[in-house]
Amino acid sequence: MENGAVNQQIPVDTTSATITIKGILSLLLQNVDENDNKRLISLGMGDPTAYSCFHTTQVAQEAVVDAIQSDKFNGYAPTVGLPQTRRAIAEYLSRDLPYKLTSDDVFVTSGCTQAIDVALAMLTRPGANILLPRPCFPIYELCSAFRHLEVRHFDLLQENAWEVDLDAVEALADHNTVAMVIINPGNPCGNVYSYQHLLKIAETAKKLRILVIADEVYGHLAFGGKPFVPMGVFGSTVPVLTLGSLSKRWIVPGWRLGWFVTSDPRGMFRKPKVVERIKKYFDILGGPATFIQAAVPRIIEQTEEVFFKKTIYLLKQSSDICCDRINEIPCITCPNKPEGSMAVMVKLDLSLLEDITNDIEFCFKLAKEESVIFLPGTAVGLKNWLRVTFAADPNSIEEALRRTKCFYQRHARKL
Amino acid sequence: MENGAVNQQIPVDTTSATITIKGILSLLLQNVDENDNKRLISLGMGDPTAYSCFHTTQVAQEAVVDAIQSDKFNGYAPTVGLPQTRRAIAEYLSRDLPYKLTSDDVFVTSGCTQAIDVALAMLTRPGANILLPRPCFPIYELCSAFRHLEVRHFDLLQENAWEVDLDAVEALADHNTVAMVIINPGNPCGNVYSYQHLLKIAETAKKLRILVIADEVYGHLAFGGKPFVPMGVFGSTVPVLTLGSLSKRWIVPGWRLGWFVTSDPRGMFRKPKVVERIKKYFDILGGPATFIQAAVPRIIEQTEEVFFKKTIYLLKQSSDICCDRINEIPCITCPNKPEGSMAVMVKLDLSLLEDITNDIEFCFKLAKEESVIFLPGTAVGLKNWLRVTFAADPNSIEEALRRTKCFYQRHARKL
Repeated sequence: MENGAVNQQIPVDTTSATITIKGILSLLLQNVDENDNKRLISLGMGDPTAYSCFHTTQVAQEAVVDAIQSDKFNGYAPTVGLPQTRRAIAEYLSRDLPYKLTSDDVFVTSGCTQAIDVALAMLTRPGANILLPRPCFPIYELCSAFRHLEVRHFDLLQENAWEVDLDAVEALADHNTVAMVIINPGNPCGNVYSYQHLLKIAETAKKLRILVIADEVYGHLAFGGKPFVPMGVFGSTVPVLTLGSLSKRWIVPGWRLGWFVTSDPRGMFRKPKVVERIKKYFDILGGPATFIQAAVPRIIEQTEEVFFKKTIYLLKQSSDICCDRINEIPCITCPNKPEGSMAVMVKLDLSLLEDITNDIEFCFKLAKEESVIFLPGTAVGLKNWLRVTFAADPNSIEEALRRTKCFYQRHARKL
Repeated sequence: MENGAVNQQIPVDTTSATITIKGILSLLLQNVDENDNKRLISLGMGDPTAYSCFHTTQVAQEAVVDAIQSDKFNGYAPTVGLPQTRRAIAEYLSRDLPYKLTSDDVFVTSGCTQAIDVALAMLTRPGANILLPRPCFPIYELCSAFRHLEVRHFDLLQENAWEVDLDAVEALADHNTVAMVIINPGNPCGNVYSYQHLLKIAETAKKLRILVIADEVYGHLAFGGKPFVPMGVFGSTVPVLTLGSLSKRWIVPGWRLGWFVTSDPRGMFRKPKVVERIKKYFDILGGPATFIQAAVPRIIEQTEEVFFKKTIYLLKQSSDICCDRINEIPCITCPNKPEGSMAVMVKLDLSLLEDITNDIEFCFKLAKEESVIFLPGTAVGLKNWLRVTFAADPNSIEEALRRTKCFYQRHARKL
């Protein structure tokens, strides 16, 4: 065979327009000066496990170790998940709902990422489109491209605490629109939606006859004035697909234990053909490990409130420090104090900088000169902003922003 | 909203023609008589962990427990897999190849099932078709439907030890054919391909300018006369995508640790755009748990040969018993003694039965009357055959086939 003979078989990239967080962070990491003595500080990714103050509870770890040592869970689980795991997740989510979910509503996934793929793959059909927020977690865009869903963006209104621009949603939707996505608590914005705003979202979706995909991977991680309200509360108004995982609340993103849940008391998703199609899709997915699934009931039941409270306290503390220090640096501001999740959007004022023309250049130069990593806003759809993760220990945040201040001073426009 | 208002959004099943093993087994299980005192014996699924004689090695279990207890692997891994895991798998597979794989060739997946999806999703494009064996592991067909790949079947020749009908492959392929699939050691047939036959497959694929997807999830589980030869041996002749996992050889199917490997020393898959596309696809998948990945180097390095030998011994023993007992029952025969994997295809002679018209009816009645489960051949594409899994303890196999003999005697056609 000639080199190139099978060229016709090698797929070309149809998604080159899409940027992934991990892709851009890995380029930024390559840009860090290896000869620099400064410790690398990454506030680029939402993975708190890099910092010792964020540690999962002993209960969770023991539950997994006991499950593997029991020798009962080395075999296959049903592809939709172990019955006891589905039941435990249904009960956990039902605590905050005006109705009860059942095991049948819950499909266990390999992290929230796989739950996103299930939602999009289940909704796609020729000509279909989906409404995504801008800014957004970029996996939605990438997954839409692979699953052949047209993407239309509605803005999150920064001046309005990153609420959904519902007029834009109405203007964008047509008879081929299958769903709108909300992420609450918000990634990348750190916002938390009020009951009233979620109600308006539900009513808009009902009017447009579209579903709501509610990404609640940061569920319960709210530390501002507003409590976390799950979108499923409005499941009687509009069918909701709730996506979530153990990753953030239990600080175990590497365990890959998530869920795809039909929060749908009126049973739109209970039609035999729909259920059959979802189940078949799960047959082609590799789900999470059986013994991790087996540990879930005990993890949910035995985790003490004090563990959750500590995480909330730490996130509140580190987000406060993060915003305060950012606001001491003239070229960047935190216009909206975060109320939840683990990240905040930070506005870049390029007019105050001499030799930096956009967010990507800012992040690359900062990585190179100061060994500090932020995510360029372009990666989440907002040019000349930055996404800063505050799920880090306070010292690291202080040090990262001290260096950022020096960086600003070197690059400040001379008056 | 009226009930049905979002009807337009609820997807309809486009894959109703496809049967899944788990789907049909679950129907069979529902058919078992609960009032029957007989112990249920399922020889329907390739999961040996249900039988205590098949148990993973202590080394593997300890490696996973140590990884989770180290507290180092609760966070995200790169979506393509941890570097040390990729390297360990590359070295493991390279032992049997005339060239060295590198870490970059290896992508870590959530079991072999996810590796199948990656292969098919990466190769699909409008109008593309793929050549699948008949009989086949049905996930290929289901996954092809979800990824919009047209399926064309070539026969495995029963009279020729289930070798690929290469004339059929040549007749089926056209310029839209992207790949052919082989499963070796074979599921559902229990065959093992010789070096010579694999060479012919490679030469045929080269001539047709198609890739070979080599499903080696049962790799090394060969206990007949022929040794297991990985398809990657012919990677210089034709690019090979090797799919595999820890599941079968280490008897841990529930751990969901598999691999998608480009066995491709000529580097057809190394083009930046191809690599970028594969990496992006991994960004939308939930991979296996980080701590399980972290355990892989130690599992591969420290598993002793005696563990593998014991499994081979047990499989040989149980497959012998299985075939011998089957051949004592007039209506079923094992025309090809299995040489590998964990299953064998068994031919049903309906002319000897009075009130049973096909394989599905045979299996449903057997489940109901005798609490014994076999998989109907229809589920793997071969009507009026059965797939019998022999990865079970000898007593269970003896008992299942003793009951099947009684079943035959009750249903035998009166002369």
